[in-house]
Parts: sequence; structure tokens; C-alpha cells
Amino acid sequence: MSAPTPNESDERLGVWLVGARGNVATTAIVGARAIARGLTGTTGMVTERAPVSRLELPPVSGFVFGGHDIERESLLEQATRQSERNGVPDGETLATVEDDLERIDERIEVGTARNCGAAVSAESQHLDPELTVGSVVEQIRSDYRAFREDHGLDRLVVVNVASTEPELDDSDAYDSREALERAIEEDDGDLPASVLYAYAAVVDGHPFVNFTPSTGNALGGIRELAVEKNVPHMGRDAKTGETLVKSALAPMFAGRNLQVLAWEGHNILGNKDGLVLEDDANAAGKLSSKGELLESILPDIGHNRVRIDYTPSLADWKTAWDYIHFEGFLDTEMKMQFTWEGSDSALAAPLVLDLVRLIAHADEHDEGGLQPQLSSFFKAPLGVDEHDFSRQLEGLTEYAERHS
Amino acid sequence: MSAPTPNESDERLGVWLVGARGNVATTAIVGARAIARGLTGTTGMVTERAPVSRLELPPVSGFVFGGHDIERESLLEQATRQSERNGVPDGETLATVEDDLERIDERIEVGTARNCGAAVSAESQHLDPELTVGSVVEQIRSDYRAFREDHGLDRLVVVNVASTEPELDDSDAYDSREALERAIEEDDGDLPASVLYAYAAVVDGHPFVNFTPSTGNALGGIRELAVEKNVPHMGRDAKTGETLVKSALAPMFAGRNLQVLAWEGHNILGNKDGLVLEDDANAAGKLSSKGELLESILPDIGHNRVRIDYTPSLADWKTAWDYIHFEGFLDTEMKMQFTWEGSDSALAAPLVLDLVRLIAHADEHDEGGLQPQLSSFFKAPLGVDEHDFSRQLEGLTEYAERHS
Amino acid sequence: MSAPTPNESDERLGVWLVGARGNVATTAIVGARAIARGLTGTTGMVTERAPVSRLELPPVSGFVFGGHDIERESLLEQATRQSERNGVPDGETLATVEDDLERIDERIEVGTARNCGAAVSAESQHLDPELTVGSVVEQIRSDYRAFREDHGLDRLVVVNVASTEPELDDSDAYDSREALERAIEEDDGDLPASVLYAYAAVVDGHPFVNFTPSTGNALGGIRELAVEKNVPHMGRDAKTGETLVKSALAPMFAGRNLQVLAWEGHNILGNKDGLVLEDDANAAGKLSSKGELLESILPDIGHNRVRIDYTPSLADWKTAWDYIHFEGFLDTEMKMQFTWEGSDSALAAPLVLDLVRLIAHADEHDEGGLQPQLSSFFKAPLGVDEHDFSRQLEGLTEYAERHS
Amino acid sequence: MSAPTPNESDERLGVWLVGARGNVATTAIVGARAIARGLTGTTGMVTERAPVSRLELPPVSGFVFGGHDIERESLLEQATRQSERNGVPDGETLATVEDDLERIDERIEVGTARNCGAAVSAESQHLDPELTVGSVVEQIRSDYRAFREDHGLDRLVVVNVASTEPELDDSDAYDSREALERAIEEDDGDLPASVLYAYAAVVDGHPFVNFTPSTGNALGGIRELAVEKNVPHMGRDAKTGETLVKSALAPMFAGRNLQVLAWEGHNILGNKDGLVLEDDANAAGKLSSKGELLESILPDIGHNRVRIDYTPSLADWKTAWDYIHFEGFLDTEMKMQFTWEGSDSALAAPLVLDLVRLIAHADEHDEGGLQPQLSSFFKAPLGVDEHDFSRQLEGLTEYAERHS
Repeated sequence: MSAPTPNESDERLGVWLVGARGNVATTAIVGARAIARGLTGTTGMVTERAPVSRLELPPVSGFVFGGHDIERESLLEQATRQSERNGVPDGETLATVEDDLERIDERIEVGTARNCGAAVSAESQHLDPELTVGSVVEQIRSDYRAFREDHGLDRLVVVNVASTEPELDDSDAYDSREALERAIEEDDGDLPASVLYAYAAVVDGHPFVNFTPSTGNALGGIRELAVEKNVPHMGRDAKTGETLVKSALAPMFAGRNLQVLAWEGHNILGNKDGLVLEDDANAAGKLSSKGELLESILPDIGHNRVRIDYTPSLADWKTAWDYIHFEGFLDTEMKMQFTWEGSDSALAAPLVLDLVRLIAHADEHDEGGLQPQLSSFFKAPLGVDEHDFSRQLEGLTEYAERHS
Repeated sequence: MSAPTPNESDERLGVWLVGARGNVATTAIVGARAIARGLTGTTGMVTERAPVSRLELPPVSGFVFGGHDIERESLLEQATRQSERNGVPDGETLATVEDDLERIDERIEVGTARNCGAAVSAESQHLDPELTVGSVVEQIRSDYRAFREDHGLDRLVVVNVASTEPELDDSDAYDSREALERAIEEDDGDLPASVLYAYAAVVDGHPFVNFTPSTGNALGGIRELAVEKNVPHMGRDAKTGETLVKSALAPMFAGRNLQVLAWEGHNILGNKDGLVLEDDANAAGKLSSKGELLESILPDIGHNRVRIDYTPSLADWKTAWDYIHFEGFLDTEMKMQFTWEGSDSALAAPLVLDLVRLIAHADEHDEGGLQPQLSSFFKAPLGVDEHDFSRQLEGLTEYAERHS
Repeated sequence: MSAPTPNESDERLGVWLVGARGNVATTAIVGARAIARGLTGTTGMVTERAPVSRLELPPVSGFVFGGHDIERESLLEQATRQSERNGVPDGETLATVEDDLERIDERIEVGTARNCGAAVSAESQHLDPELTVGSVVEQIRSDYRAFREDHGLDRLVVVNVASTEPELDDSDAYDSREALERAIEEDDGDLPASVLYAYAAVVDGHPFVNFTPSTGNALGGIRELAVEKNVPHMGRDAKTGETLVKSALAPMFAGRNLQVLAWEGHNILGNKDGLVLEDDANAAGKLSSKGELLESILPDIGHNRVRIDYTPSLADWKTAWDYIHFEGFLDTEMKMQFTWEGSDSALAAPLVLDLVRLIAHADEHDEGGLQPQLSSFFKAPLGVDEHDFSRQLEGLTEYAERHS
Repeated sequence: MSAPTPNESDERLGVWLVGARGNVATTAIVGARAIARGLTGTTGMVTERAPVSRLELPPVSGFVFGGHDIERESLLEQATRQSERNGVPDGETLATVEDDLERIDERIEVGTARNCGAAVSAESQHLDPELTVGSVVEQIRSDYRAFREDHGLDRLVVVNVASTEPELDDSDAYDSREALERAIEEDDGDLPASVLYAYAAVVDGHPFVNFTPSTGNALGGIRELAVEKNVPHMGRDAKTGETLVKSALAPMFAGRNLQVLAWEGHNILGNKDGLVLEDDANAAGKLSSKGELLESILPDIGHNRVRIDYTPSLADWKTAWDYIHFEGFLDTEMKMQFTWEGSDSALAAPLVLDLVRLIAHADEHDEGGLQPQLSSFFKAPLGVDEHDFSRQLEGLTEYAERHS
């Protein structure tokens, strides 16, 4: 249990989570409050390790949480279920942050479910589907604004941790700010929720992080807007488990000039993420960002498949089995296999906290647009071609050394 | 099957292998000759991949092989056994290089077995144990010299690929050139074969590579000598399998601030290397260089054990099972496991060829002493603290870019 | 290498393989001829192990092979490709049986491809699709008859080892001999090839084995016919790899009253079998017989999924990863995982030879109808509810003891 | 959660655990009390599954626990540590049985530590080592007797669940009752604790179960005594994890006539059992009973090794990796690997309860001597050669059917 770092700014930082009652958000909130109360350490947080820890970053204990969600189950109910089912958080930790969770739950507003596919269940509540796109955007902006004002926040960071949406068919159609804003005005029914949340954040200067494979700020129009407004944003699809391992291992095969004949990945998990991904449409984006990484590091790869299967009994525990068939000297065929068994939320949550701190730092230093120094956090880092985890991390190290 | 690179110098390069009839040497020789005859590609060779391939390096097809050994079984017999038992090389490749193997076998001289422990079998032949250390050194120098002269070589690189020796008890006693040379003069019975081969090479200006965990050029006295004579040398213990994977994976755990509670490695293999390592004395050095890497990358690691067991039916195929128990956010315990199944010789042999080419390049450019740009090849790179495989490789990339 | 058993009858036994140029058939033929020529032992053959080996069974060396196929590639070409790609058989064995393969290939007739789905490639040749079902049946019967007469055979055993067909939609419609024969007469377009081969065999008194998940002799009409004609037959879907392991392991969980929460199986393979199973229709039957076994042994199982993915580089090597999540005392969740890496053909081929010998034995002893003593060979043993491998084997042991 | 069976006798049954504060005993007691209080089901108990559940067996809820130990840490402290460290039992279950544990702890007497090797720690308390062997036996008998009288028990079953002792050098020297009793009289310093506990039980007619690899009732002298006194007893070394899997899988390789070339097992665990087994002397017996099973089922096995390593972070969780290298048809080499991750105590504890019930049943039916119907519970079942788990279970099934 390592102690939090001393170098921390004392501004009031708001953290707005889209999907605030999901497992990643819940775990991040529980973790932040447990750290604030001295109940747990910061293992798993990249910003608590040198040299990144030498940056002057907003303290996790000062985060003011709010968010959107379409589920009615409260934060505390969700956390209790996770504790009972997954053992994360443990009962003692949960008991100590119960009041915090109840207070934060009151700050969660009803969100939109536009084009969210299988992520929308029968029990969901969401903004009236009859509303125009423009009105939805207005509502979201107003929710962000009210939160910031009500809590006297110096800064508000928006993070999308909602369930994966189906891919947007024609994302090129929104490649400029103008095209995107026209689509909003003209009530374009294809725009998905993630884009509306991202637009509402960036247009009003709130830094934005897309933790999911959903479209969000990957859209050309939002990227252009972020540059014009000088708002820092980054994404997409946080690299937490199997793909993290791939980004550490694949460079080894490349570096030794070994020919990967096949890399077969099979993931099983039992949380809502797994359930949503049973739907082929929702899975497409995720599988694509998981697969592209290998093609990028190993351009000559022979075969590359990723499967994600829903296995209810595993709850939040995700197990990946990867089988790597490769050829070496004298045409010798060899094999590597690995299994990775991790709590999806426990792996993701500290990265949410890291990203909030680092994007707030960029915002404070007027570094708008994409944030390539954060590439190590993402499966498909926007604007970055490097997928080798060690080299991506060096980008962060250099950033930290430059600023400290 | 990638074609050999065009940028190649045309000097006559001698390659002297200590342990020339062992499986690594045999596979390297078979591979070099198969490449020369256009039978196989260069998969597995780091020097055939950009940007290293842009260096002007001696062509593998021009290597002139010779060496020492204490075994009587000929190169061709050894290669035939490997082909039948391991499938590497395949029968067709072997048939085409048979004559080459017979010719090269005639250039293999009887070696010394001083302090080689379990590596010396009843069938071994070796230099008279009654000889003084000084006479053994003279014999080795004379073997190197004669080979160079007989074949009109421009340069001779010596590579130790012999079986692992027991560790030298008091290596500090030979920490200077003076102390080492005095020990040789005074017929010090503790000096092991690997040191004598290394000394004989460096004192006469032959670049030296220690591919094994044996002491060899790691000794202070030899390092001093190499600086004085400006002879390039490097080692030790080539990183071919399980430890290679560790050096790619451990930085991932460090980089994500995950706490490794235990990293248990279990290796099984069935070749002579495995048999020799059944002897605790011979295994000590190997286990130490395998283990140190983790302590270096993960200084807070809780438990770290490596086992090597002899399993005859596996022949040259080495299987490692590694179990990694780690803790993340909110004290969550998680696990990763991997198995690695590779042909030990097929993994090692191309690196022998790479190292010969790269150390010859250094020698040609008058770059004497240790060669840190070669650290990615070794479990315990002499003079280098960096164990992260990606960063080690960057050292080589930078070297290649600087020279091309 | 165990020697063949002495107790062997000396009758001339014909073995007709449907799918005679496929990998299982090819390996079975190569193996039988290699045994006949003293090149290999009988490891992997159940009939060569006591007490089954004490039965008086037809010797493998005396098998006279013939068959149907829709592929043009000759037996020798197929065997050569398997040898080069999979290493099974090895080059030396192949060379010695080459002439045998060429001679046998001449006895392979063009087969039918009715309702075979993805198993029919562009290069296939097959009986005119315009032929009536009745004419196809006549042609097959005539092929069987001619083979028996031409070679002076005492008995002809027909074994279906062709690629898996899509499942028959309404198999109940052919539940009686009468219904089936009427369908043939009325040129019913739904009847698949496997049924026609089985019908043609049984109606003329040839013992029949269905080694595949295809419908074949599982149809009620054929089972009735076999009883009437007193012809021994058995099936279906030989148990060679992952499912074999399941049938040995699942009883352990049941026997210890452990609750299996999920059993996830993921198979990857690269031969034609794998390619054909990429097609959902062709895969359905296979997945169903693989899955049913667990439901039978573990009626309370929580989740049970089997996947089969085509991974070309693996060729005939099939790797299965199974993940078993189970609950024990005090609601403790635990896990078992296994991987199985086998050559599909090398596992299947000896069982083909075993089944031929054992069904010929039954025929010789006038034991018509289903053969429950052969249940251990099948994933979905016709007429048998027992799936515990040890208990199934006991059935065979008892049969052997009764007859010897 | 299955409900306890209705068929239960209502006698008062005492259960005396040697090693009563160890993890297996603690988990068995917690489980029995949790069942009694309706907090948990009987998953993992063989006697709760048909047909064994149809026997009239003493109810677990009526067990009256007592025992010996040499550790001072109380049952509740031990259970609390297990709950916090391993998660078994969970906090809620523990809270409900707290009072039971405190009450039972008062019935635990100080035991003997004779010849227990590494199992005796500095903190241990034990019977004065100066006492004669005869006096120790008297003390144990008196403890058993007092417990039985104090609690008005109808029957007392003694189960040895203490840490593994070093092997007895010359067990043949105690091959008869006479030789054993003479040794006790003559104060023979070689007799280990397990033998004294077993003797004290059997001589006074208490059924005895040896759950460990220690010598105990395996000694010829005790077996003779048990026959003379008609006392049921059984052992040794409960089959809970890796060896259980072996006894289910090895018959599959045998049954298919596959040649196992090597079976390498590597176990890692972190509880006291693991720590004690770090000592080579204490490990010998365990490794021997783990290894013998394979030799028995697979007499032609090529190589067979079992390792047990202590890995503190795993606490009570035991992970085994087994690698099976085997040869099939046409000399094809194939592989199976498995990992097994279980809570050692959660696997063992229900079997303790099962064995108590079943040996009490035998005693009630005057079935003295060894109990072959219990062979499925043991790695080295006394007096039984059958190691195939399915067949061993059939023995129990037949026993159950005969008695119900």
C-alpha cells in the first residue's frame, strides 16, 4: 500500500462519468473515496509511480463526482452487488464509503440512449426518444454546467465509461465541425449517444476522455472542434487486459524477427460488458480495436482472431486465453499460450483516475487537442500509430520529465 | 522466407565456436549453410530486420566455421540425431548440408574441460588435465591462430556455446588483468574453461561472445584486458525463451504499477543442457541470471523462483510454465499464466549468427570493450542495467541508425 | 512399439471408407499398411490392449481398402501433403507405403454430395445431382457389391469418415424403415449422402460405422432395417480429443458432488474438417454431440459452450482450451483449465481400424443392430446413455471377457 | 445449495481431529457448523449425492468435535485468518459460527510432536518430549476416553489431519501387533506421532481415518490390531486436487492405448502444508503417494515427476500445472496440459465429513479392518490396487446399493 504523492494541486476538480452507475465507474468512485479515507493504496495507478508521480496533479481525494446513466440501480446497490459477486471491493471498504456513494448517486442525471443497441435494457430510463438531437445536446450541456456551478468547480473532466455502442456506419459524414453541427441541427437520427456527450463537453471547453470503443470524440468533427477550442481530449478503448498483454508481447515477436502464423484470442467474462458484447453489432467496434493492434505491430501476421463470450458465472472476472503459433529459424514452428484472469473493473478503474488527472493537467497547461502522451492507456490511441506498450509508456515518461 | 540483405561486406570472417558439436552450434552451422545454399530464409535473425539490416554486416554465407569441443560425436552425427529426434533441421535441409558438416567437423579441435562439472561425460576427450593452466591457454591461442592462418581469415570471432559450468567461487580474486594473468602463470586450479577460452581470444585481439551463463568474459580481469586491447566482447547467457518473455512482460506490470506477489517459473527440457542443469552446481549460474532480471525490473516482487527440470522425452523442446500472481487496485489479486514451447536450438542459433555479425561490425569500427547495444540478446548483459526488452532493442536500433 | 497380437482370424475383410481421400481415411490406410509392413507399432489402437486384444479379430494387415470420395486429389497426394504439413506420417513411412496408396486409390469411386453443404468444394466431382435418390442408392449398392466380388472378400465393413454434413431438419420423418424406403422411392430431396451410404450398406448386410456427426445410421428407419436384417452398426461422432477428455473429467466433478458453473470449450484447428465447420450449418451437429455429453454427466451444469474455429496454420493439429469454473464446499469457486494438442488424424485413424475389427467380430457372431459395447468410441453413442469414459470402457472389457 | 438428506441416524457421534487447529480441520468444523445452522449447502460432499445419500448416515449437524493440536492459535483465530487471507469461509459464515468455534476450541488437548520434523514450529506446545512412548499413548487414550464420557457419545471417530511427518525409515520393523506393542513398551524413539494416535484409537475400538500421507494406520502392526479388534480404519493421503485429476485422466490414456512419455506435475501453494513440505524429509511421503498412482495406472510411463513448491502469496490456494507428453498412432507425439486452482481446505474439508460418516456407518455394521469401498478418497488407499477414480467410485456405489 503506497501512500499518495505529495505533489498535488488544490483546485476543485469535477469528474463527470457517462455511465456513472456501471461497474467501471462504480469501482473508480469507490476506489477514489477509499483512497481519500486512507483505506486503500494506489497500486494500479500509473500516476502514482515515478516519474509520472512527480507531476503536479489534482489529488484523487479531491475529485467531485457526478454523471449520467440510464440505469435505475443506485451506485450503492451496484457496488454492493459487485462486492458480493466479485469480491471487489471487499465488504469492509464498501461499508466505509457507503455514505459517499449515496451522496454521489444524487448527482447522477438521466442520460440518453440514442443508438446504444443492446446496451439499453427494458429497465433503463432515458431522455425522451422523441426529443430532437439538438435538445438532447442542450440538456447534456446544461447538466454539465449546472454541476460545475452547483459545486463551485474550477474544472470539469468528462469521461465516457458507458457500455459499448454499435459502430457508426458512416463516420466520414461527420468529418468536419461544420458537418457535425449541421447534423445536430438537422436532427440526424444516426448520431449515437457517445458523440452527443463528447460534443457537449468539448463545445463548452470540458476536457473529454473516451474510455470505450464507442465513436465519441474519434469523429473528425469533434477533433476539429477540440483544436479550435483548444480542449484536450483522448481515447479510445482503454487497454486493460488481454490487449495490454498483446501490446507488451507482440513487439517481442517482431523484435526477434519471428513470424507469427496465428494469434487466437478467446475472452470470457460475465459482467454487463460481456452481455452487451454478445450482440454482434455492439461487439464490432471492440473487436476491431483489439485486432488492429496486432496488425500494426506484426504486419505479416498470418491469422488474427479475437472472440468475446459471455459466461455469466464469471461476473466481472475476465479470462483470456491467447494461443500464438509462430515460426522461427529453419522454419521451426513453436507456440506460446497465455491466460489472463483479472477483475475487469479493478483493472480499469485506476486508469480512469489516472486519465482524469493527466487530462486535467494538460488542460491546466493549455495543451488542447489530442494527447499522444496518453497513448499507453488505449487500445486504439487517437492520432498515434505506436502500439508497443513500452514505447508508448516512454512517451508518458518524457512528458512527465518535461513538466517536472 | 525473407531473402538475405544486400548490404554485406566481403571480408573472410572466421567463426570459432567453443562447444562446436553441441546443439546450439550445430543448429547455427546447419542454418548458416542452409542459408548459403538458398534452402531456408532468415526468420529469427534480428540482423535481417530493419533497421539493423541496413548495417553493412558480414554475410552469413561467408562464415568460415571452426571450434573446440570435448565430445567425439561428429557434427553430422549430432545434426542427424537432432533431425530425427527434434525435427530441427528437417531431413531435406540436413541432406543438402551434409558435406559442409563433414568438412567443418575436421576443423574442430579437442578442448579443455577444466572445472566444467557435470558437463564432462565419460565419453569426453579433452586436453590432458595434467597440463598447466598456462599450457592450456597457449594451446587454445595456437588453435585460434592456426585456424586464422590456414583459412586466410580477415577476422576471427570466438563464441562460447558450451554447456554451462558451475559458478566460480571467488570471481573477485581475478578482478584485474594483473591478478588474472598471475593466476594463469601460477597454475591456479580454480580457473574454469570458459575463462581460458575468453582470455585466449581477447589477449590476441579476437572479438569474444559469451552465449552461456558460464563465467568467461564476465571476469573483471578479462574486461580490463579487453579495454586495454580495444577488443569488443559481450555476454552473458543468451535470452532465448522464458527469460525473453519475462523481459517483455515484467515491464508491463511495472509500467502499470501492479504489484507482483509471486512469479513462479518452471522449465522442462530434454537436451544435454537440461541434463547438465540437473546438477545443482551447474544450474546455479543459470538460475541466477534468469532470476535477477525480475528483481531488476520489479524491485518490489514478493516471490521469484525458477526451476529447470530434465524431461528426456522432450529432447531439444523446452517448455516453460510461468505463473504470475499480482495485486492491483483495491488490493485485488489477479493472475497471469503462460506456457512457452520452443526448440531451444532453433531459438538460440540465429542469435549466434546475429552476434557474430554485430561484434565483427564493432571490431571493424574499432569499438572495443563491452557492447551495450547488444544487451537485448542476453539475460545478464554485461555492464547494462536495463532489462526491459523493448528498451534494450531501442539501443540496437539507435546503434543501427547511427551507423547506417 | 508393441507387436500386433497373435489371435487373428484369417478371413479376407473389405474396408469401404466413405470419404476415402480425407485425412482420417488416409491416415488409417497409411497406418494399416505401415503396420502390415512392420514399420510402426499399434500404439493408439484399443484392440491391441488387453483384454480386448484377446478377442479373435481380423488382422489389420489383411484389410482390403476401397471407398467413395468426391475429391479428385489422390490418396498419395493427400498423404504427401499431410506428411509435409503435419509431419504425420513421417517421410520414411510414407515412402514405404507409396505403392500401396496408389493401388488403393484406384479402388476409390466417385461419391454423392447430396446435402453435404460446405463440404462440397468447387473442385469436387460427384454423382450427377440430376440422378434420382433411388438411382444414387443403386449406384452405391453396386459399388459395394462389385468391390466385394472383385476382391473375393468374405465380409465388407462400411465406415463413414466424410466431412460433417448440415443436420437433417426433420429426422423424425424417416423414423421407420417403411417411411425411409418410401422417401427414397419418391425421390425425397432432403435425404443427405450419409443416409444413402448407410442405407445401401445395411440393406445388403454390410456392417456400418458412422464415425462422423452426420445423420447416417442414426435415423430411425435405418436402425429398424438393421434389426430386421440383423446387421451390426454403430455411431456416431468418434470421440478423439477434447470430448474424450470431457468424458473422463466430467464424471470426476459429478462424483465429488462439485457444482460446475461453466464449462467453456474453445477448439482451433486448420484441416478441412475445421474449414467445413466454419459453416454454421455443418457445425451444428458436431457442436450438439460435443455439448450433450456434459449435460448428460452434469445435469446441473450452469453454462456449457463449445466453439470450433478454423486456424489455417495449425493444419491437422487441433488445440482445445477448456475452462471449467466450479463451486465446492462453503460456496468456494475454483477453476480447472486444460489444453489438448493433438493430431486429429493420428487420434482418429487407429479408432477406425479398431471399429472395423470389432464390428466385423460382431457380424461374425451374428450380433446385429446397435453395438453398445462400442460406446466408448463415440461422442453420441447410439442407444447408450452412459457417457463416463471409464464405464463405457468397462462395457468393452466385459464384451471382450465374454467372448474370449 | 442442496438440502441435507433425510436418512440420518440420531446417535451422538464424536469426531476427534488430530491437528484440530489446522486449516483442513478448521474448515471442516466451520462447514459442519454452517450446515447445522442452515447457512450453507453440502456441495462437495460425496455422501450427499445419490446413491450414497441413500445410506442411513449420522447427520453432520450432530457431530461433536474435539481434538489434539500442538499449535496455540485458537480455532477462531485460525478461521479468521483463513477468511481474511483466502476468502474461505466468507465473513458472514464465520460470524455465525464464531461461538461454536470458541466452544469447540476448549475441547482441544495438547498433542504430541514426536518425529514430526518440520511440522513443529518454535511456537508449538506439545507433550513433554521426556515422556516415554508408553506414557504418551496412555495420555492420548485417556484424552479420547474422557471426551467420549464427558459428552455422552455413542461412538468416537478419530481422523488424522495433522501436517505430514517425515517417512518412517523402517516400517517393516512394526509389521505385527506384537512387534508394535513391544516397541511401545520398550520406548522406541522412532515411532512417530501419527502411529501413536492411530494405535490409541484402534486399541480402544475407535474407528480411525488417516487423511494424511503420514504413517499412522498404514503400519502392519496397526492393521493386524484392527482386524483383531474388528475396528474399521482407512487411509491414506486424501485425494483432493492434482492427484484426483490424475486418477480421472490417466485411465483415459491407458484405455486408449496411448503411451505416456512424461507426466510432469508442478504444485505451488502457500499454506502451512506447503511450508512443511519445503522440508525434503516431510515431502518424501507425499511425493511418493502422488507418484505411485501414475505408475500403477500407466505401468509403461516414461517419466513421472511431482514437485511441490511453497509460494506464500497463494495462502491456501493450490495451483497445479501438469504437462503430459504422450505418443499415439504412427509415433505421433502429442500433449495435454492442465492447471487446477483450488482452495486446499475447501476441497479437503467435505471429504473429512464424508469419511467420518462412512466409517461410523461401517463401525455400526461391525465391518472392521480396512474399508476398500472408501478407496476413491485416497491417493494411496490401503489394501486397494485400483487407482482409476471412476472404478473406485463404483466400489462406493455398490457398497451404498448393498446397504440401502
